Amino acid sequence: MSDLIYGRNSVLNCINGTRKIEKVLISKSVSDSKFITLCSKKGIYYKITTNEELNRLTNNSNHQGIACFVNSFSYKELPYLLNKVKDKTNSIIVMLDGIEDPVNFGSIIRTASCFNVDGIIIGKNRQVQVTPTVSKVATGAEEFIDIIKVTNLNRTIDELKKNNYWIVSSDGYGDKIYTDVDYKGKICLIVGSEGRGISKLVLQHSDFVCKIPISGPITSLNASISCAIFLAQISNSQSK
Amino acid sequence: MSDLIYGRNSVLNCINGTRKIEKVLISKSVSDSKFITLCSKKGIYYKITTNEELNRLTNNSNHQGIACFVNSFSYKELPYLLNKVKDKTNSIIVMLDGIEDPVNFGSIIRTASCFNVDGIIIGKNRQVQVTPTVSKVATGAEEFIDIIKVTNLNRTIDELKKNNYWIVSSDGYGDKIYTDVDYKGKICLIVGSEGRGISKLVLQHSDFVCKIPISGPITSLNASISCAIFLAQISNSQSK
Repeated sequence: MSDLIYGRNSVLNCINGTRKIEKVLISKSVSDSKFITLCSKKGIYYKITTNEELNRLTNNSNHQGIACFVNSFSYKELPYLLNKVKDKTNSIIVMLDGIEDPVNFGSIIRTASCFNVDGIIIGKNRQVQVTPTVSKVATGAEEFIDIIKVTNLNRTIDELKKNNYWIVSSDGYGDKIYTDVDYKGKICLIVGSEGRGISKLVLQHSDFVCKIPISGPITSLNASISCAIFLAQISNSQSK
Repeated sequence: MSDLIYGRNSVLNCINGTRKIEKVLISKSVSDSKFITLCSKKGIYYKITTNEELNRLTNNSNHQGIACFVNSFSYKELPYLLNKVKDKTNSIIVMLDGIEDPVNFGSIIRTASCFNVDGIIIGKNRQVQVTPTVSKVATGAEEFIDIIKVTNLNRTIDELKKNNYWIVSSDGYGDKIYTDVDYKGKICLIVGSEGRGISKLVLQHSDFVCKIPISGPITSLNASISCAIFLAQISNSQSK
C-alpha cells in the first residue's frame, strides 16, 4: 500500500525522510526546477503531469503542483519508544486521546517536531490516522517523529508511569494552572479530542490536570493550540 | 451584501454576536432542536433544508448541517480601537503582516479572543479577509473581537507607538528569546506571513524581534501556533 503526499514542503520533507518514494508527480505549471533537480540527484522516479491530474488525485486540495506516492506510513511500537528514551534525563511524549480533525493532528505533529518531542502516541480507534491531509498540514514532519499506535491508552499510561513519566493532562477544567507545574524530567502530555476532551478514566490516571487560563466569550482553545502552548512551556521548563 | 457562516459553533456564536442574521439554514439531518429553539426564541427566520443544499452553498465544506446568512462583516477603524484602550494599563493588539491562509487567520482570531486581545489589525492587501472559512475556523470568534483594516502597517505602527505600545515582532531569526521580554503594559504583537515572514520595514520598526527557540528538521512553527505561544506568554506576563 502507498500513501499520497502533496504540497511543496510535505513532498520535500518526504523526499528527505525515511519512506521509500515510488514516484514524484510534478505539474507543468511549477515554474522552478527544484524538484526535478532533487529527484534526478537522488535517483527518484518523477513524472511531469498536469494540474488537472493532481486536482483529481488530491480531491482538489491545495497541492501546489507537487505530489508523490510513498510507502505507507509505518507506526512505531511502544517498546521501541521506551527503549529510545530510557537514558534521557528530560523527555516529552505527546499522547492524543481521540483527535479527529486531520488539521489538528497535522498541526500537532509539526509543532511536536519543532519542540523535539520523542514520540506521539495515538489510539487505534476514534483517532484520525496519518492521512495525506495530516501530512500536508504537518509539512512532512511525520517523517521525523515517531508516531506510536496503541490499543489502550490507559494501559499505555501505566507503562509510561513505570518508565518514570509524569502524566500531565491538558483540560480546560483542570485544577492547576499550566505554568505552576515543574516539567523537568519525563513528561507525557495528554491532549483530548476536539469535542469531548480527555476521557474520564485517562483524567483519573493523570498526575496533573492543568488548564491554560483564558477568558472571553469563546470558551475553549483549539486542541492543537493548547498542545503548542503546553509544549512551549514544557520545553522552556526543561531547558532551564 | 451578506456573508455565509457555517458550522454549529460558528453559527451559534454568530447568533449570539452583533451582526444581523438574515436567515438560518438547518439541515433535516440535524437530530437536535437546539437551533430551531434558539431561532424561535430570538425571532430569527430559519428554514429547514437538505445536506445537499448546504453542500452546494458551502462548496462541500464541513457545515455540520447548519449555516446562516448574515450582514457582511464590518471592520473597525484604528481611532475606535485606540480610544477603547486609552485608559488601560495592560493591552494586547495583534497585527498580521500578510496572513494568506484562512485557517491560520481563523485560528489566530479564536486564540486572540481567548486571551482577551483588544484588536487584530490587518492590511487591506496581501491578507486574507474575514471569509466563511475564516469564521468557521474561528468558531465565530470574529463576532467578539475588533478587527481593524488599515492601508499601511508601518504608519499604523507609528500611531501605536505614539499611544504607548511596544512593538514586538515574532520572527524565527529574532535576536531575543520570547521569554526574555517583559510584556507588562501595552504590546502590539506582529505575526508575519506564512511564506515570507514579516516584511523588512516592519521588522525595522519593531522595538523587539523575538524568536521561539525550536530545534529539529522542521525549521519553523506555523504562524497561528507562534502567535498562540506568544499570546500565552504575554498574557502570563501581564497577569502577574
